Amino acid sequence: MNDLHAKDNIVTRSVKVETSVLRRNDQAALANRQLLTERGIVALNLISSPGSGKTTLLEVTLVRMRERGKRCAVIVGDQQTDLDAQRLYGKGAPVRQIETVSSCHLDAQRVGDVLPEVIDDQTELLFIENVGNLICPAAFNLGEDFKVVLLSVTEGEDKPIKYPVVFSRAKVVLITKCDLIPHIEFDRDKCLRYLRQVNPGAVIFELSAKTGTGFEQWIGYLAELGRQDER
Amino acid sequence: MNDLHAKDNIVTRSVKVETSVLRRNDQAALANRQLLTERGIVALNLISSPGSGKTTLLEVTLVRMRERGKRCAVIVGDQQTDLDAQRLYGKGAPVRQIETVSSCHLDAQRVGDVLPEVIDDQTELLFIENVGNLICPAAFNLGEDFKVVLLSVTEGEDKPIKYPVVFSRAKVVLITKCDLIPHIEFDRDKCLRYLRQVNPGAVIFELSAKTGTGFEQWIGYLAELGRQDER
Repeated sequence: MNDLHAKDNIVTRSVKVETSVLRRNDQAALANRQLLTERGIVALNLISSPGSGKTTLLEVTLVRMRERGKRCAVIVGDQQTDLDAQRLYGKGAPVRQIETVSSCHLDAQRVGDVLPEVIDDQTELLFIENVGNLICPAAFNLGEDFKVVLLSVTEGEDKPIKYPVVFSRAKVVLITKCDLIPHIEFDRDKCLRYLRQVNPGAVIFELSAKTGTGFEQWIGYLAELGRQDER
Repeated sequence: MNDLHAKDNIVTRSVKVETSVLRRNDQAALANRQLLTERGIVALNLISSPGSGKTTLLEVTLVRMRERGKRCAVIVGDQQTDLDAQRLYGKGAPVRQIETVSSCHLDAQRVGDVLPEVIDDQTELLFIENVGNLICPAAFNLGEDFKVVLLSVTEGEDKPIKYPVVFSRAKVVLITKCDLIPHIEFDRDKCLRYLRQVNPGAVIFELSAKTGTGFEQWIGYLAELGRQDER
């Protein structure tokens, strides 16, 4: 019985601390949200497994948005290294890196710390590239307008129902690396059915950064988001 | 200042609870370890991103090990669904599923709960397929002999230095889906260099479940692990 009580105690304390951590995160998220709203900036929180193509997506997207005269900014989270940030420099948008080290997700406080450095009066869109992780980032609101979840076709069509939390919270789902479909076993129809099952309202784009497939639609969608005060 | 103290308090409590959770996990891991050692079972903890090919690897591995007369057992962790377990039934090894729901990793207690059901006196090898996540599972010892980390070539060659914690803790690294290399940009030499950088002693196999490449070596390696009392 003592063991049981000790266990209950730990669980209760653990839940309490988790709640505190999430509450503090939500307060910081609210502050980020206020700053972004004041500036009329639309913020997207990009979430996916490692290697699903978030950085490649941004490399192409930043160039295309610059061609359209849209001002973007990027915050990149990684457990270690600034490799992703390096890939994104020189694409026409300010980039700030957050190394999370032992943490498995970005939190709103860390985003808030770098936010004033990365946006200015001209910024229209902010991309927040989260740490590669399909589970933990789903729980942390960063103050974004909405979540964009990427799913590479190489990961398999079953991921939406295996990781339903993150897919159900996405406004937009990007199916990436579609050029590889001929070389793998990927059941597109089943994937779309699974996505609709966990998130009937998701906006879905099927993309290939290699061939450019789907980017006209994706870029068009982003351009429409534009500056909130112009809508 | 009050805010700062409150923050420090939360952080201190958070660290303490984390330590407690890890200590309890380690106690359960020790119990698992003792049971496995008593039975002479070698246990492997398989960790990777979602969709790196853990289940496909096991599908092939279980059949090949059965052909060699080696008795295996499997514990499969997933956030939701028993899709992976279903794929592994009928391959000649008992399989038990753990649905972690809100948790981002397997822990030793949950593994310990199903361990007695999945192993018997004949079991030689136990595969524990962790939740698809390259960060959190690295922190939780399940009582395994060693960790096996999978890296699909589609994820990119930079993952070992971007997620160094898990790669540095692996005894074995499996580079999977090597048949896709001709269709993607994957710098094999750089990947191996990065792996050596974070883990000079890692045993590395380059595999394709589609073509069978590398499986002779991988299966041979597993067969050598065999029953500890026979070594």
